[in-house]
Amino acid sequence: MAAQDGLKNRGHTSADVEERRKAVEQLTEADLKAITDYSFDPEKASKNIENMIGVTQIPLGFAGPVQINGDYANGPYLIPLATTEGALVASVSRGMSVITAAGGSRVKVFDDAMTRAPVFRVNGIDHCVEVIEWIRKNVDKIDEAVCSTTKHGKLMEIETFPNGRNLHLRLSFSTGDAMGMNMATIASEAVCRLIEENTGAVAVSVSGNMCTDKKPAAINSIRGRGKYVIAEAKIPKDIVESKLHSSTDAIVELNERKNLIGSAMAGSLGFNAHAANMIAALYIATGQDPAQVVEGSMCMTTCENVDGDLYIAVRMPAVEIGTVGGGTRLPTQTAALQMIDCLGEGKARKLAEIVAVTVLAGELSTLGAQAAGQLGRAHKELGR
Amino acid sequence: MAAQDGLKNRGHTSADVEERRKAVEQLTEADLKAITDYSFDPEKASKNIENMIGVTQIPLGFAGPVQINGDYANGPYLIPLATTEGALVASVSRGMSVITAAGGSRVKVFDDAMTRAPVFRVNGIDHCVEVIEWIRKNVDKIDEAVCSTTKHGKLMEIETFPNGRNLHLRLSFSTGDAMGMNMATIASEAVCRLIEENTGAVAVSVSGNMCTDKKPAAINSIRGRGKYVIAEAKIPKDIVESKLHSSTDAIVELNERKNLIGSAMAGSLGFNAHAANMIAALYIATGQDPAQVVEGSMCMTTCENVDGDLYIAVRMPAVEIGTVGGGTRLPTQTAALQMIDCLGEGKARKLAEIVAVTVLAGELSTLGAQAAGQLGRAHKELGR
Amino acid sequence: MAAQDGLKNRGHTSADVEERRKAVEQLTEADLKAITDYSFDPEKASKNIENMIGVTQIPLGFAGPVQINGDYANGPYLIPLATTEGALVASVSRGMSVITAAGGSRVKVFDDAMTRAPVFRVNGIDHCVEVIEWIRKNVDKIDEAVCSTTKHGKLMEIETFPNGRNLHLRLSFSTGDAMGMNMATIASEAVCRLIEENTGAVAVSVSGNMCTDKKPAAINSIRGRGKYVIAEAKIPKDIVESKLHSSTDAIVELNERKNLIGSAMAGSLGFNAHAANMIAALYIATGQDPAQVVEGSMCMTTCENVDGDLYIAVRMPAVEIGTVGGGTRLPTQTAALQMIDCLGEGKARKLAEIVAVTVLAGELSTLGAQAAGQLGRAHKELGR
Amino acid sequence: MAAQDGLKNRGHTSADVEERRKAVEQLTEADLKAITDYSFDPEKASKNIENMIGVTQIPLGFAGPVQINGDYANGPYLIPLATTEGALVASVSRGMSVITAAGGSRVKVFDDAMTRAPVFRVNGIDHCVEVIEWIRKNVDKIDEAVCSTTKHGKLMEIETFPNGRNLHLRLSFSTGDAMGMNMATIASEAVCRLIEENTGAVAVSVSGNMCTDKKPAAINSIRGRGKYVIAEAKIPKDIVESKLHSSTDAIVELNERKNLIGSAMAGSLGFNAHAANMIAALYIATGQDPAQVVEGSMCMTTCENVDGDLYIAVRMPAVEIGTVGGGTRLPTQTAALQMIDCLGEGKARKLAEIVAVTVLAGELSTLGAQAAGQLGRAHKELGR
Repeated sequence: MAAQDGLKNRGHTSADVEERRKAVEQLTEADLKAITDYSFDPEKASKNIENMIGVTQIPLGFAGPVQINGDYANGPYLIPLATTEGALVASVSRGMSVITAAGGSRVKVFDDAMTRAPVFRVNGIDHCVEVIEWIRKNVDKIDEAVCSTTKHGKLMEIETFPNGRNLHLRLSFSTGDAMGMNMATIASEAVCRLIEENTGAVAVSVSGNMCTDKKPAAINSIRGRGKYVIAEAKIPKDIVESKLHSSTDAIVELNERKNLIGSAMAGSLGFNAHAANMIAALYIATGQDPAQVVEGSMCMTTCENVDGDLYIAVRMPAVEIGTVGGGTRLPTQTAALQMIDCLGEGKARKLAEIVAVTVLAGELSTLGAQAAGQLGRAHKELGR
Repeated sequence: MAAQDGLKNRGHTSADVEERRKAVEQLTEADLKAITDYSFDPEKASKNIENMIGVTQIPLGFAGPVQINGDYANGPYLIPLATTEGALVASVSRGMSVITAAGGSRVKVFDDAMTRAPVFRVNGIDHCVEVIEWIRKNVDKIDEAVCSTTKHGKLMEIETFPNGRNLHLRLSFSTGDAMGMNMATIASEAVCRLIEENTGAVAVSVSGNMCTDKKPAAINSIRGRGKYVIAEAKIPKDIVESKLHSSTDAIVELNERKNLIGSAMAGSLGFNAHAANMIAALYIATGQDPAQVVEGSMCMTTCENVDGDLYIAVRMPAVEIGTVGGGTRLPTQTAALQMIDCLGEGKARKLAEIVAVTVLAGELSTLGAQAAGQLGRAHKELGR
Repeated sequence: MAAQDGLKNRGHTSADVEERRKAVEQLTEADLKAITDYSFDPEKASKNIENMIGVTQIPLGFAGPVQINGDYANGPYLIPLATTEGALVASVSRGMSVITAAGGSRVKVFDDAMTRAPVFRVNGIDHCVEVIEWIRKNVDKIDEAVCSTTKHGKLMEIETFPNGRNLHLRLSFSTGDAMGMNMATIASEAVCRLIEENTGAVAVSVSGNMCTDKKPAAINSIRGRGKYVIAEAKIPKDIVESKLHSSTDAIVELNERKNLIGSAMAGSLGFNAHAANMIAALYIATGQDPAQVVEGSMCMTTCENVDGDLYIAVRMPAVEIGTVGGGTRLPTQTAALQMIDCLGEGKARKLAEIVAVTVLAGELSTLGAQAAGQLGRAHKELGR
Repeated sequence: MAAQDGLKNRGHTSADVEERRKAVEQLTEADLKAITDYSFDPEKASKNIENMIGVTQIPLGFAGPVQINGDYANGPYLIPLATTEGALVASVSRGMSVITAAGGSRVKVFDDAMTRAPVFRVNGIDHCVEVIEWIRKNVDKIDEAVCSTTKHGKLMEIETFPNGRNLHLRLSFSTGDAMGMNMATIASEAVCRLIEENTGAVAVSVSGNMCTDKKPAAINSIRGRGKYVIAEAKIPKDIVESKLHSSTDAIVELNERKNLIGSAMAGSLGFNAHAANMIAALYIATGQDPAQVVEGSMCMTTCENVDGDLYIAVRMPAVEIGTVGGGTRLPTQTAALQMIDCLGEGKARKLAEIVAVTVLAGELSTLGAQAAGQLGRAHKELGR
């Protein structure tokens, strides 16, 4: 049947997309006209998707400007946010306005490494010791194996986690301006083969989940993955009052009862109000991997009363982003990256700084609103 | 200046969007033409975003067909996935093909409730006891307060978590076909006011983070939030071999060393391979909240050898989705929902079933590929 | 050989103990004279140990008096602590002196239930649903099965946690004044048999680790196990200064940076300074199960500045103790229980109150000492 | 009054102990005769306890012999266990008998370091960067400061965890044969003073809870604290059947459903059956710190079917023990250490090996019993 044939089309031209879309329409009786309005040649997306039938359109807004005082991002920025959650952009913008009025946000990348963690089957303790010894003595060969697969990536550390007949490794790489997961995966596969050949250990998976990718895990919250970034701002007392309609003490109290104590009681790995919202909106806008919102959400927000003023900071140990490759190549994503001058080589840490400041703004705004008892009203007025 | 004025425009018409976009272009020197190609009247998105300047386009593909044997979804389905991660759609499709060849996936929603967890400041233990007593004796009044704010939502349970001068409550609501967070928030605010007025406890936040929303938290993994869904499939041995080029034992071993042991050693709350990928792609396509991929990622994948065949299941305790409101109202998202007949009233549990089966397919495919040592090659060929 | 024969002696008289001890001495060449000085007839310990060869002696001190304002413990108490950690008793005593000077500690048991969580193998989702349905419809029969095994225990709740071919139940029991683990285990075994017979589910273990016994687990920290107790005190500003040589603000700051933020960053389930020390010393002195120090350690300490005074509280969700059975029957343990009038029936909640106040005192003292920069010196002077 | 005076006695002689005990008896009306039977001069315990009034006696039994094939412990051992939990010694002994029949347990210490983690208050990001830089450039001075406080301890690593106005460090030390907490604390205090003087950072606490001591924490489970030990055994199929009355597959299944899946669903950091029982009994017998049973409980037990035989292993990342100092100096504890030739210098790793094998035996026995459905009966017959 024609429709079934359409489904089997594996091409990447507009005609192929059309054929598939029509087949899907025919089979599902859905009206898919809305998804046909794409602004790019589908062949450009041939490395980003299979079976393309159109595009999903997410409304894109801007928040800001926000004054960023980073090592890479320095100046006022307008931030692209793709979201369908009413009130989010307005809320982040409000936070940015407060931060900017207070002189901006200092932000810094403290660490930068992508990890991949293979798991091997070993015969038991003695074999495990042999394998670990072999690794320790052959770091040069392992480096060579990594270098044979990538010219941007560099192996920085090998950690070993023995456990009975399991040997987990955690490999850390610098990955330049790519988010780096594929680079790390391919390099790790070369390492796996090398170890297999020389030790008899069996590489059961190139990813044994101690990476940890796209799952919440204490190992990343503690040790970091991708960029480990901190953003801070100091909001003078009078700005807290005039712009947030709250007080330093009310926000500090709220942060403690909610983000520290409440999260602790819930057995949470995230100690923040809604970091994931800002991360998701900025990741989607700029072509990042939205599944990595998971790690991004392990953010800790702290607030202090410093001489009456409000000090607020976010610790984000796992910002996994890139400015080359992946979704960054698509036109709307490229445009969003251009808005913040983050497209291409040499921009990944700058983007990480922008992510953290955006989260800071969203946290500040929500804490301010809740401290002022406004949360419900904000949603009612702007909301869904 | 004109550009600055453009930024301040708060309107929702196409002309407003254009004015803002041009202002952003002028200020950032970015070329934003790509984002102007939207297929809907921006006024339709007025409850979804502020400061709209265009749209982000995410390539949309389909996976499947997959045979689903749910209580709500029953039959073969083509699944819309919006992603920029090369190989994902192909991989999920492969999993679906295996599942379908094996007779499909049985899937069931075991629980269904949305939570919101206010935190109160009390004076200490004696006051805390009084407040808890008042709540126990006045469930009727609390119900009334809830009903005054919503006709779809219904309060199902109130849990109390005392802690010194903090009293955390966790309110569970049935929320019909909406994801329900706003409904739960507004109802909880009414509950907060009632408790404040009658007990002297101070509602510090309508969300004290024991909800827990958009942060990974054991409380949700244990107790569930939104839909608690399980999907399973039993893949005959010969299909494992012919279609996955692997064996039941190899996949079972991989799942144990990686998803159970590796995740446990990493201090993770997610015991799966890459559930977040499928969740993100399906949530974005259908207008769900992508920040809730966080909770979705707390999935556990189990595999067993049952008489030589492969039994595989995913436990997803926190699928937070809706088929009305939020992003579901936008045209491309509506189209995707139509593809799976999940638009509007009476469809939320059906969508939850589809989410779980899609995750199952992605898990099966990735485990199969890793067990067959193909992961690297798959990415190299299709990849980024 | 004689020594080997001695090892095989399974008797409980003093002569049997002697024979075994001599055999061990002969085989190991250790001088075991020190362990022979026991103050009771070994036959009294026949239900507490096998292969007895003597006793371990732990120095027993007292801390206090401390003024306790509980629902069960009311008045000044001297607390027995068995420990080998120098400075511990002195430190706890100091905290008690401060608490008493401030009018004592209010303490309350908020919840009281012992859990046991069997795991069943089911055939898959449909079978799992049948088993859950059977359980829901046959609560009466399940109650009967429980009652057939115990006259003190009562089933309070059955929670179900389906997961593929696993079905975990969590049974909660009231257990009177026994810690209740054995009672709960035996009752749960009866429940397991009943479910097996009626549903075809296979009880793989009477304890599937969702209990969770003797392992740190969020489920207990969230939901409680044994007694859920809170103790608090309000220390006037001048007492903080005169007796702790510190200030309210210094202690509040320390608690936040260490017990809340530091523990959160470490991925911890315990948000306290050293609760386990006090729990261990009091559990050992009074014949509790020292392995349950694990759950006890999941304590959260909170501190607040209330009008300049220091409010401090400990939330202890999992105090698993008893005043009958187990180690409480032994003479030195009986003596310690008598010291706090906690021996026998009707005393378990009283003991739980005393545990929490003792932990509170130790927390207060250590926080005070650290805030005053004294920790090192305290150990140097009294120390090991 | 005389009794009140007795309480105030701070001496360490037998007469002082007697005076205090009588005072306590008079005030509490308890009969404390049982606690007076101590086998040592109380002055020997003057560094272990204050306010001594007697001793707690814990029945001491032996388990074994067990064949240990460690790097330090090599041969058959009789293991001292102090417990009041009926059936524990018998159960461990049964496990040891199985292990020994199978040729013994291979055991190895993979890592060995004690940690202490101070927390500093810094002014914000820029100050934090300065402090971290100072630390990196002055490792020599920090080493000197450490060496000025200890001749046994050596600083091995400094990790930095910035977080807003908090800077947490994690210092790792080798500590010879002492458990090493006091050594690490005193050395860390010297480091704190040095950093304070040179950077203006304020040492809020020498322990900021990222150590993490006596609280369950993922950081220790991932990275280890004290000794990181693994013990394994391979039990031939016929021994599983004849001695455990079970089968390899039944035990492997049980371990997966209970120790891996059940613990994961409970949000646990311990993936074992009852490791804490063995740790507590051995720690108490040998004068270790029983509060550190908490970290010990974060053990992972894995089981595999290897060609029909049962492979079982325990991973214990945080065995915090010593063979000098602390409670090891007391006579009954010294005697127990002599039983296993672990008294004094050069014995700490040997003791760690023995701890792990003892845990392995207890795990094997309990898993075997549960797999054979015997758990309840064992407790009923021997039980409490």
